[in-house]
Amino acid sequence: MHADTRQQIVAAADALIHRQGYAPTSFAHIAESVGISRGNFWHHFKSKDEILDAVIAARVEATRALLARWEACSQTPRGRLRCFVQMLLDHRDAIERHGCPVGTLATELGKLAHPLRPRSGELFALFRAWLRRQFQALGHAAAQADALALHLLVRSQGVAVLAQALKDPAFVRREVRDAMAWIDAQAPEPPPRARSRTPDRRNRPQR
Amino acid sequence: MHADTRQQIVAAADALIHRQGYAPTSFAHIAESVGISRGNFWHHFKSKDEILDAVIAARVEATRALLARWEACSQTPRGRLRCFVQMLLDHRDAIERHGCPVGTLATELGKLAHPLRPRSGELFALFRAWLRRQFQALGHAAAQADALALHLLVRSQGVAVLAQALKDPAFVRREVRDAMAWIDAQAPEPPPRARSRTPDRRNRPQR
Repeated sequence: MHADTRQQIVAAADALIHRQGYAPTSFAHIAESVGISRGNFWHHFKSKDEILDAVIAARVEATRALLARWEACSQTPRGRLRCFVQMLLDHRDAIERHGCPVGTLATELGKLAHPLRPRSGELFALFRAWLRRQFQALGHAAAQADALALHLLVRSQGVAVLAQALKDPAFVRREVRDAMAWIDAQAPEPPPRARSRTPDRRNRPQR
Repeated sequence: MHADTRQQIVAAADALIHRQGYAPTSFAHIAESVGISRGNFWHHFKSKDEILDAVIAARVEATRALLARWEACSQTPRGRLRCFVQMLLDHRDAIERHGCPVGTLATELGKLAHPLRPRSGELFALFRAWLRRQFQALGHAAAQADALALHLLVRSQGVAVLAQALKDPAFVRREVRDAMAWIDAQAPEPPPRARSRTPDRRNRPQR
């Protein structure tokens, strides 16, 4: 029962931090969102920083699970890279309202010079290493694969910032389409139309 | 004298909002930064929102002046587009520490569902319209020029988010170099090496 309450607090804090930011999120907001007393709350967490640490740990775990799902979602590195970009469309609503949870938290903790800022950077590091591995699997050397991984992070973060500011679905769809084409241009695999010899049933790219 | 104090308050608030964000910036921080009494402060501004409104107005004015300088800095639209990208290198230190002032404020006000969020979007709109005009001058139709303008904003915002998270100057230099090459690819002008017939002394692109 205690573990459940703790998980509920972390999930509520995670959602509130994404929705409104870390600085404006108070103990009272989180307790109200979970529907527990302040006493029960304090039993689990003594400070906002403790909660933030738990939220980041939960996000790291969720990111590892997400990357494992993408790993399984396609047999080709190009298909897996497309899963990453597809995320911008799958979460378009939340991104237009609150931005990217990874990017906006890193930005805010950076401005606050918060001691947990480096921890929040682990989330970028997970995506970076995973993307780099996909580009290496496409035949790029490590340094080049890393540069391509960072460029894809640049595009996704830039789209998230502008999506939140513009709230224009056509803009997101166009940038996703262009990013997919950019991935294809980095991939010395046969183009989609000629892929019938290497069918990839679990991941049909969307046009 | 009053006007000077007002300007000092706005400049101090502008810097603090960029450095630490809007939510954590209090009246006390701003008054302390300017070195004035709270009474003097209240004479000029009655609420944090009033200050934010003045900060955004000052940024709009500064952005118009910046765009006018870029307009003069090169005789070619390609040279002017390169001025925009060069900004990432010229302000690399501040961006690595605090992110882009335009993007991070829009992100934070979006999360706060702040009534001045649309006003902060005017800054993006100014850059977007100016960039669109440059791409139109390169021969692109209005809709395509607008898409290219937004893509350049995507790249600059993405670089700013990652630059703050990574603090890796080599990353920024590489992304700037790639963005310059991307601009060149959109420009049906002679490539840099063949430009000796159309010298552009005031804006020597950096390799």
